[in-house]
Amino acid sequence: MRIDSLDFFYLAMPEILDIGDGSQDALLVRIVAGDHVGWGECEAAPLVSIASVVCPMSHSACKPVQASVLGQSVESVADIRRIGDLVRAHSLDLLQANHTLSGIDIALWDLLGRRLSEPVWKLLGYKQSHAKTPYASVLFGDTPEATLLKARTIQSQGFRAAKFGWGPFGRSSVAADEAQLHAAREGLGKDGLLLIDAGTVWNTDVDAARARLRALRDVRTTWLEEPFVSGALAEYHALSTESGPVGLAGGEGCHNVHMARHMIDHAALKYVQIDAGRIGGITIAKDVADYA
Amino acid sequence: MRIDSLDFFYLAMPEILDIGDGSQDALLVRIVAGDHVGWGECEAAPLVSIASVVCPMSHSACKPVQASVLGQSVESVADIRRIGDLVRAHSLDLLQANHTLSGIDIALWDLLGRRLSEPVWKLLGYKQSHAKTPYASVLFGDTPEATLLKARTIQSQGFRAAKFGWGPFGRSSVAADEAQLHAAREGLGKDGLLLIDAGTVWNTDVDAARARLRALRDVRTTWLEEPFVSGALAEYHALSTESGPVGLAGGEGCHNVHMARHMIDHAALKYVQIDAGRIGGITIAKDVADYA
Repeated sequence: MRIDSLDFFYLAMPEILDIGDGSQDALLVRIVAGDHVGWGECEAAPLVSIASVVCPMSHSACKPVQASVLGQSVESVADIRRIGDLVRAHSLDLLQANHTLSGIDIALWDLLGRRLSEPVWKLLGYKQSHAKTPYASVLFGDTPEATLLKARTIQSQGFRAAKFGWGPFGRSSVAADEAQLHAAREGLGKDGLLLIDAGTVWNTDVDAARARLRALRDVRTTWLEEPFVSGALAEYHALSTESGPVGLAGGEGCHNVHMARHMIDHAALKYVQIDAGRIGGITIAKDVADYA
Repeated sequence: MRIDSLDFFYLAMPEILDIGDGSQDALLVRIVAGDHVGWGECEAAPLVSIASVVCPMSHSACKPVQASVLGQSVESVADIRRIGDLVRAHSLDLLQANHTLSGIDIALWDLLGRRLSEPVWKLLGYKQSHAKTPYASVLFGDTPEATLLKARTIQSQGFRAAKFGWGPFGRSSVAADEAQLHAAREGLGKDGLLLIDAGTVWNTDVDAARARLRALRDVRTTWLEEPFVSGALAEYHALSTESGPVGLAGGEGCHNVHMARHMIDHAALKYVQIDAGRIGGITIAKDVADYA
């Protein structure tokens, strides 16, 4: 069974707003091999990723991604890893390639699972599938009042967990952030799991993050996501020594297994939050899960 | 003085060969601000990088690179860093952006240097410019005899240093690589500096690299470049404990200051070999030099 076609579908809202909402567009991947079809998704800039699929070769280690995919055999899980290894080697110098590969890898798992009539979790070697707690994910409102309203709505919809992030958070005063955090907790009620996504707003500024820790603890934040950019290992580690019950979450910016291992080894994360749509797909995400 | 235009020029040989020669194409960047012009170069897949400049916005942290560059003021070195910070924040989720930014940053240094009639090394704060030893950089021949001929030609041209890499090296037997290494040394003569570029051929396989150490030492290799992929910190470190006088060189795959710092801190490199055309330009390259 060889890969006959590799197609990308760029979906977008009619208008893309300049807000931290990453769900305004999507890049889907369809792979066809013989009678079988698999679908995946890249969490990536769509047109740049498409360019990485079809661009001209620059040299032997900077080839378009499709050169390592089309015509390849897909009979087993080992083939999926082999194709990923080909992309990583032949597109070594094409930075976008790992984001593009992510959707391809996911599509290959989907295709193989359909062909073998097995769910992917079984193909990955797990004995059972574990239930997950879904959480509502929204941007902070422009004001604490708006955040309170969002949180109440989420609570009334029956969610037991909610994540608030981006928007004005971290961009003005500590007092303003404290008001936002208390509004989110108030609206969600005392029992809801509250997750906060700082969206790398403090870059590498540990003091700025530290100044919000008291309020984050007061509202019983389960995790503080991405206070810093991925790779700021020392900064994550420093904050973790003071964050107490507020676990640090990070890793979304990792685009290979090595970066994720460095975060696990040196950043003192409580939640390893890599994205299968960016790190190289389900294959590499499983490697990271095994390492963690 | 505001940035009026940002243009990319894609140059390529008439035919791109499937070999490890990264000089077969080039992506030049021209920035115009008022009466001043600056030129830079991205060491990157040209069309993918161009796509990252002009693609549609996906969300507030996945904007086309030009959104953070056009119209910006460039009066000082601080402005160059400010523009880089804007790109890193507003194109956070656009993986290719750091490769694209690299050429932009270099062009901004060129533009500022021309405007102030100062060489870039002075603008960087150095008291003097240091002479460099140029080295010839070629691919290994397909046979030891071909490599011998290349090395003799380089020696006869007066080069005191030469780098051999890619081609068949590392891809077949240890004996074959040993023959290649001895051919390079023989052709270069006993006094020439011999540099070897493994081109990440062993990925993370320390044993495969270790098997070549004796010959690398025997031919007095000054540096072994990229035995492993960037980020394979533990593997670099393990090899370094046995490589003796053969210094390890690496870092070309780093595309931000954090990755380079991790290589410096944990990979036991003797030669920190980041590429200004990939890591974010001269600004970040200087940060890495200061840290090293």
